[in-house]
Amino acid sequence: MTTRITVLGLGKTGISIGLALEDAKKGVLRTGFDEDKELKNLAKKTKAFDEYPSNITDAIKQADIIVLDLPVDRLRTVFITVAPTMKPNSILINMSPLVKASSKWAEELLPKNVHFISAIPAFSYESMEDVNKEPRNARADLFTKSMMFIAGDAKIRKEVIDVVVDFAVLLGATPYFTDLDEVEGLIANVILLPQLAAAALASSTMLQPGWDDNQRLAGNIFHLALKPLELVNETEDYGISILQNKQNILPILEKFIAVLQHIQRLVIDEDSEGLKDLLTDILLTRKEWLDKRKEGKWNYYLSSSIPLKQDALKRFSNFSS
Amino acid sequence: MTTRITVLGLGKTGISIGLALEDAKKGVLRTGFDEDKELKNLAKKTKAFDEYPSNITDAIKQADIIVLDLPVDRLRTVFITVAPTMKPNSILINMSPLVKASSKWAEELLPKNVHFISAIPAFSYESMEDVNKEPRNARADLFTKSMMFIAGDAKIRKEVIDVVVDFAVLLGATPYFTDLDEVEGLIANVILLPQLAAAALASSTMLQPGWDDNQRLAGNIFHLALKPLELVNETEDYGISILQNKQNILPILEKFIAVLQHIQRLVIDEDSEGLKDLLTDILLTRKEWLDKRKEGKWNYYLSSSIPLKQDALKRFSNFSS
Repeated sequence: MTTRITVLGLGKTGISIGLALEDAKKGVLRTGFDEDKELKNLAKKTKAFDEYPSNITDAIKQADIIVLDLPVDRLRTVFITVAPTMKPNSILINMSPLVKASSKWAEELLPKNVHFISAIPAFSYESMEDVNKEPRNARADLFTKSMMFIAGDAKIRKEVIDVVVDFAVLLGATPYFTDLDEVEGLIANVILLPQLAAAALASSTMLQPGWDDNQRLAGNIFHLALKPLELVNETEDYGISILQNKQNILPILEKFIAVLQHIQRLVIDEDSEGLKDLLTDILLTRKEWLDKRKEGKWNYYLSSSIPLKQDALKRFSNFSS
Repeated sequence: MTTRITVLGLGKTGISIGLALEDAKKGVLRTGFDEDKELKNLAKKTKAFDEYPSNITDAIKQADIIVLDLPVDRLRTVFITVAPTMKPNSILINMSPLVKASSKWAEELLPKNVHFISAIPAFSYESMEDVNKEPRNARADLFTKSMMFIAGDAKIRKEVIDVVVDFAVLLGATPYFTDLDEVEGLIANVILLPQLAAAALASSTMLQPGWDDNQRLAGNIFHLALKPLELVNETEDYGISILQNKQNILPILEKFIAVLQHIQRLVIDEDSEGLKDLLTDILLTRKEWLDKRKEGKWNYYLSSSIPLKQDALKRFSNFSS
């Protein structure tokens, strides 16, 4: 038996999914689709997929699983496009960092006989220094030894969760099933807050009168600090992922401002010990995190239900919607 | 005639200076020194310098120019070390982002018959995506088509400025002579504020109760957002460059917090147009900046006194203290 997986959107994540499933080829048929010819050619060149249909309908009509590597402001449009053609009982997996709104849109726009679920990847330690999301940074080990957060709405069925858990295992990730609220909280802390901090940094420098002068010295450090803006998950309707996650973002933003006011106080008081202690604490905690990320042992957080790769493949290749 | 240049500290910048002066070899003798054997060997391997003395006294006693690629919290110690051995009329050039305090320390600790000046490089467009300051990222074109801000105290002599202008030209940079206050303002905006923003981001996530959960999803975006902390310019006494630049940092920090409160308001009001406009504005301004940085044409800011490379070399190689 063969399970047909179609990836829509051949960015860094999309192509990496194809590459990561190379080992699962005997049970999986990989289809890749993107309207951008350049991306399609890049995917072909790296042999990320088995098939490259020329239109989206051909790409999805036989798919058991459709995986979306799309900007959040494209999700609704794509739901509308795929809705009439999706196979009954097939699964649509969202990997973009917007889980509650996308679930709501799926409920509204997709037929009742298909399943929708989010699987948010943390990405591998090795990819953490990628300074851009260029598709040529795609790699088979993009998900290795890192967590994948799987969450659906209240009526998501166990069989569907099992299939997505198997999918995560085949990608090399450590699957973790949780609820939409928890995933939204995580996203707000480690994806959206960095973007808002970068936006505020840009706004308080670039959009100020002194910028004509300041931009001449702005270099490496400044550029990296603004990188989260480039990795933002909208192509045009910027801010959607923030406003849709308002409930989590607001208290986090409040905390961020409070911390800045604390730092401001340390500087006003010339409290060199206090500032040094804070920075030392941060640098140590950051090092611990990077060590833990590198080791990639997250199992102690999880139930004992993660399947071995061969079992996942066996079960997975028998899933046919 | 030959001008002897000694670089103390063989990090990315230090080794790059040696490499960048390769073309000036007939007029310049390059000496490299670092107590770290590994860095010295790396410099040797890349043929960045002509001589590698085994102790600091040998490295500096004949030097006409000493260039410092050092963390800010090492400056005072090194001033004390080099003071008794510096050649009369020689020039000590600081490249670390702390100019007023270092000038004050130089006044206090160096002999009266030597000169002290800061030359703060912006670094080349090509190096702006370097995610770390590892010495193996050293390159001959690290200063190409980017500005170098030269500043000394009120009594700095024109001959000294001319030598440092020539030095900047030989490195491939565009020299700009200004005062200590202006340079400190630029540093506060584009080097220190990004570091404080990263510190606040780290503190409001990593040092909070939810971090055990959040760290599992934290990846690429989060890691890059914290990079300014790794590129901080202290090895131990963290915060010196911030406290010593308090006067500039405080109003900038105030502005940063005000911008965050504005963003907070946009989110509370669900003002999607306002948020989108702000982010669009930022992304456009950032693009304009990157284009300008890439082009590297800063000449319109400058007087017409920048020498051509061959003239700079001719004059420079006749400087002997």
